[in-house]
Amino acid sequence: MSSTADAPRSPGRPRSVRADEAIVQATLDLLAEGSTIEALSIEAIAARAGVGKATIYRRWSGKDALLLDALHTLKGTPPQPAGHSVRDDLVLLVGAIGHNIDPRAAKIMPCLVPEVNRSPAHYRLYQNMVEPRRKLMRQVLQRGVRTGELRADLDIELAMALLSGPMLMQRMLRWQPELDGRILPERIVDAVLDGLRAR
Amino acid sequence: MSSTADAPRSPGRPRSVRADEAIVQATLDLLAEGSTIEALSIEAIAARAGVGKATIYRRWSGKDALLLDALHTLKGTPPQPAGHSVRDDLVLLVGAIGHNIDPRAAKIMPCLVPEVNRSPAHYRLYQNMVEPRRKLMRQVLQRGVRTGELRADLDIELAMALLSGPMLMQRMLRWQPELDGRILPERIVDAVLDGLRAR
Repeated sequence: MSSTADAPRSPGRPRSVRADEAIVQATLDLLAEGSTIEALSIEAIAARAGVGKATIYRRWSGKDALLLDALHTLKGTPPQPAGHSVRDDLVLLVGAIGHNIDPRAAKIMPCLVPEVNRSPAHYRLYQNMVEPRRKLMRQVLQRGVRTGELRADLDIELAMALLSGPMLMQRMLRWQPELDGRILPERIVDAVLDGLRAR
Repeated sequence: MSSTADAPRSPGRPRSVRADEAIVQATLDLLAEGSTIEALSIEAIAARAGVGKATIYRRWSGKDALLLDALHTLKGTPPQPAGHSVRDDLVLLVGAIGHNIDPRAAKIMPCLVPEVNRSPAHYRLYQNMVEPRRKLMRQVLQRGVRTGELRADLDIELAMALLSGPMLMQRMLRWQPELDGRILPERIVDAVLDGLRAR
């Protein structure tokens, strides 16, 4: 998968790439098994990945840098808006919130909430993890203002919270049992676009 | 505070009331100090409260019943909507989400997120804790539909998620740093009522 056309033939991926992947996977495994970020140690990750600590420190400056990479791997690539309809792009992005292909995410992500509150470093880590996805939504909303699909005086940051908050609460806490199992992203986006007020 | 006009004079509250309060406070102290719900034991609570285990079991059927009372105590009494303007009542209720007078709540509430995901019993506990507050908001929204302030086809449960999700995410995760420190409940309610779409 990581080979390119002009790379020399080899019996697989380079050893350093395989080691990097094993380290990232070991980090995610330990978190999914219930380790807190605080308790997670480079020693434990090295042992689980079957590498020496030095191998980890050659590639990452420390635990937080490794965690950020591991969490990005866990989240996968954000979906790419098609750029035709602001409404459809928002449905795509809202649907991706808390929707995880890796089953370990359902165990790891809720556990980050207390950690994020406990430590400014972990709060920054969390912010770095979500910012690329937030940027995509910000761009769609800004486009909507430019094209006239959205109100000219739109508060972009507030609009992002209105669209993301309900989905995140529902995926993370099943906050409202009555909303389970329905086509939630579409319903959230349409209701936020239209508003609740009688006209 | 708990004495009534016709109660006999006494040098304080009845001993059983004082014991109940000590037990609830001990539970909250242990949670705020980092105990998980899972690790919390009746033994530890009894020791911290300075009572015997039997005293706890005389009053509560078990740990979950005690936890529910303790969390209700932590959250305090929900605010009472004035019943004049649906918009103002929603601002009041949204402002109360995650707004805690007891400083222990800021430590305890985020820690419930992983627990709620781990255990169906704790999910029910969480639902029992939030349902009285949710009911207040549901009633305000239903009133808004009746009075014509809100659209006739309003999806009440969805509307509750739209109003609550952004506030909860912000209070629990400071999800969007750009929104900190502004008058958020008013802004959320007005934006959800008005919608994002250009008209």
